[in-house]
Amino acid sequence: MKGFERKHLLSTEDLSKEEIMDIMNTARRFRDLMGKGHEVIPTMHGKIVVLMFFEPSTRTRSSFEIAAKRLGAETIDFSSIKSATTKGETLIDTAKNLEAMNPHAFVIRHSNSGAPYLLTKIQSIPVVNAGDGFHEHPTQALLDLMTIMDYKGEVSKLKVLIVGDIAHSRVARSNIYSLKTMGATVSVCGPATMLPPDIQKLGVRTYTDLKSALPEQDVVMMLRIQAERGGINNQFPTVREYSRHWGLNNNSVKLLKHDAIVMHPGPMNRGVEISQAVADSERSVILPQVTNGVAVRMAILHKVTNGKNIEEVI
Amino acid sequence: MKGFERKHLLSTEDLSKEEIMDIMNTARRFRDLMGKGHEVIPTMHGKIVVLMFFEPSTRTRSSFEIAAKRLGAETIDFSSIKSATTKGETLIDTAKNLEAMNPHAFVIRHSNSGAPYLLTKIQSIPVVNAGDGFHEHPTQALLDLMTIMDYKGEVSKLKVLIVGDIAHSRVARSNIYSLKTMGATVSVCGPATMLPPDIQKLGVRTYTDLKSALPEQDVVMMLRIQAERGGINNQFPTVREYSRHWGLNNNSVKLLKHDAIVMHPGPMNRGVEISQAVADSERSVILPQVTNGVAVRMAILHKVTNGKNIEEVI
Amino acid sequence: MKGFERKHLLSTEDLSKEEIMDIMNTARRFRDLMGKGHEVIPTMHGKIVVLMFFEPSTRTRSSFEIAAKRLGAETIDFSSIKSATTKGETLIDTAKNLEAMNPHAFVIRHSNSGAPYLLTKIQSIPVVNAGDGFHEHPTQALLDLMTIMDYKGEVSKLKVLIVGDIAHSRVARSNIYSLKTMGATVSVCGPATMLPPDIQKLGVRTYTDLKSALPEQDVVMMLRIQAERGGINNQFPTVREYSRHWGLNNNSVKLLKHDAIVMHPGPMNRGVEISQAVADSERSVILPQVTNGVAVRMAILHKVTNGKNIEEVI
Repeated sequence: MKGFERKHLLSTEDLSKEEIMDIMNTARRFRDLMGKGHEVIPTMHGKIVVLMFFEPSTRTRSSFEIAAKRLGAETIDFSSIKSATTKGETLIDTAKNLEAMNPHAFVIRHSNSGAPYLLTKIQSIPVVNAGDGFHEHPTQALLDLMTIMDYKGEVSKLKVLIVGDIAHSRVARSNIYSLKTMGATVSVCGPATMLPPDIQKLGVRTYTDLKSALPEQDVVMMLRIQAERGGINNQFPTVREYSRHWGLNNNSVKLLKHDAIVMHPGPMNRGVEISQAVADSERSVILPQVTNGVAVRMAILHKVTNGKNIEEVI
Repeated sequence: MKGFERKHLLSTEDLSKEEIMDIMNTARRFRDLMGKGHEVIPTMHGKIVVLMFFEPSTRTRSSFEIAAKRLGAETIDFSSIKSATTKGETLIDTAKNLEAMNPHAFVIRHSNSGAPYLLTKIQSIPVVNAGDGFHEHPTQALLDLMTIMDYKGEVSKLKVLIVGDIAHSRVARSNIYSLKTMGATVSVCGPATMLPPDIQKLGVRTYTDLKSALPEQDVVMMLRIQAERGGINNQFPTVREYSRHWGLNNNSVKLLKHDAIVMHPGPMNRGVEISQAVADSERSVILPQVTNGVAVRMAILHKVTNGKNIEEVI
Repeated sequence: MKGFERKHLLSTEDLSKEEIMDIMNTARRFRDLMGKGHEVIPTMHGKIVVLMFFEPSTRTRSSFEIAAKRLGAETIDFSSIKSATTKGETLIDTAKNLEAMNPHAFVIRHSNSGAPYLLTKIQSIPVVNAGDGFHEHPTQALLDLMTIMDYKGEVSKLKVLIVGDIAHSRVARSNIYSLKTMGATVSVCGPATMLPPDIQKLGVRTYTDLKSALPEQDVVMMLRIQAERGGINNQFPTVREYSRHWGLNNNSVKLLKHDAIVMHPGPMNRGVEISQAVADSERSVILPQVTNGVAVRMAILHKVTNGKNIEEVI
């Protein structure tokens, strides 16, 4: 059985079940050690991780930064250093320059789908995709998977529903790939304008009516809606309209099985795609998702940089 | 005698004399060790401090960052990561998310009075108030106290005057509490529009005329004036008018006792609330305040996070 | 023979050959150790470097940050902390306040020529000039020199041409000083409007015609043009005009000796002062310049802060 031995993490699309399980096991090992009081597990001592966030981000960037520091690595924040790219330098020149400074990993978030892939082609430092355009957000899917396994066990027996703007969601896409690989039954739900035309090709069932989709699910994943813009392309008339039909609120949540869990990648629009009460209910595993995010990112950074053996550094 | 054993530092209002003295002693210990060449005193090795500055700040943030790093801790700068809150996420959701990443302390500056207190209610990580609205700025008062004790000794014998916009100053409020607890005689001075109506209840004497207040003081603390706005609510007609009546300049400074000291929390408006010559005079202890700030913040971070025993790590 | 034992690095103008060679040797030592897998060479363990970038910068700031971290130092980023200076505080007050926090080095970039020198006069922490106005950018010249020595050997036998807006280039000025000290024959080339009137006093030859200057050169250093503004003072009519006459493109590069190298301090305007093909050609040593930048900055930070003996910490 071959574990995750890649130099880059660009997507979940091509990860095998064995690779995913290897990441899960490594992440759990880090989580356990931190739970036992290991504040630093310095498998990356002295290594440098460059955080290249070309889109604003709170939790993902902080999560990667904490992950790197808990591994004993240093971070260089390129996000607030926008001068060169604003001076018209290309992403390629920027990346090649940073490469020449010999850091040990790049973590990149970019509005262009494929930007992380481009980096792997033009330079030699390991690249971790922290979200690229409408394409993928693989560490989000992996932390989601870790959380699902924590709460629901064997993934192949589970029915998972993703609700929201599926067409423009890298979170949805990465989750569909990893959940399908792990054998889950995946469905998506949203207004017809938010469902990509070819989505069934990915092996998922589609719903436009949330109420008919909910009763059989084990896991419901609510996506953030770009509420302030009426969706990305005015896909729904009003926030209130969206919320009433596709939000998970105190009425619709009653349709769920008693042990179904509710997830959200954050940041939440409370009262829009998820109600206040549901977000804070016992079903909600939103905060465990965040905790697992640090552990999963530690596992990924550790692996792509060939970190030292865990047992040797603790 | 019970020292400072709190999980949070929100205010000086409820600190006992014993707690304050414990903080002073710890801060002096750190200062001594740094003076002897200990560049790091790693009682917080591997711990993570999240700096949540929702108001701009130079010196306070740098001071906390240096304090954390001198204790061997790592810092996560949330200040430049405004995306989630600008996306409309609440402070509560932001804090709960950061909590889920398991850092070891939050340092928060916020324009809303009570924001640090709110954090202590909704999550479990230690919280240090780095200034909240018009409420309190406890580490400033503690570093001021440390400086006063350095230069003037026994606080209970001292007369201290605070000059400026007392009504809107968290620095004034925190200093009044700690200085009163330590037994000082505290007075405040400013235009009537800048003195809060109920200020005498705090046991301080009020002056509107600076010249009559100065002669008996041992310590004069000048507050920064929002000169560019004519004060917070147009409390004075012109900067020149304010400066002439309530600024400490080469004339008014002559009214002070020969050994009285002059303080300022910074950043100074030179030529407004304090003249160039007075700011740089022998009486000025403004830079020692800054030096003590690092030591006091080390003591606070060390204590709220239950840092390792100092003797064991040096 | 006396090495570099200064407290500050403000310019290359007054550096002796012995001092320069000492910096080169130290930088090469650090580069060798990193090449052998030493991820940290902690001669500055626990020390704090304050990065004061008052002008935006990608590569220089990242390079200094990586240099500091590879020496085991911590960095405090003052660049994103603009509040105090925007509140009208002077550079002097800002610097004196930071000094009072007892960091171990200041790295400053400022639009005013002489700002780093000013800092050395009013406070006691070592100062490294990371570029001041049109004055100097000494670490750039030193990394350029290191790269020239790597590729071309003995500097005193070399002819070096610097092309661009010589009058407004701190990179040109610092390079002229260090290259002349090392015995190189230095020429400059650009539109007459970009050549300072008294440039010959520095012992350089001037050209306005690139094609006549190129054939005898061993090293050609292309400067970035402020293309978006038609140069700093509309010194040329159009970017196309500039590029055709003073850009190094596929035609003009043919005039060079077969073993001449091409340099650029970055960020490049590809297609303006340097063509795509030339930038990526075998002659180009632009990325080795960046790699050497980290090593040179390590050497400088190590030396101005009296870092521990290298052999003792590896």
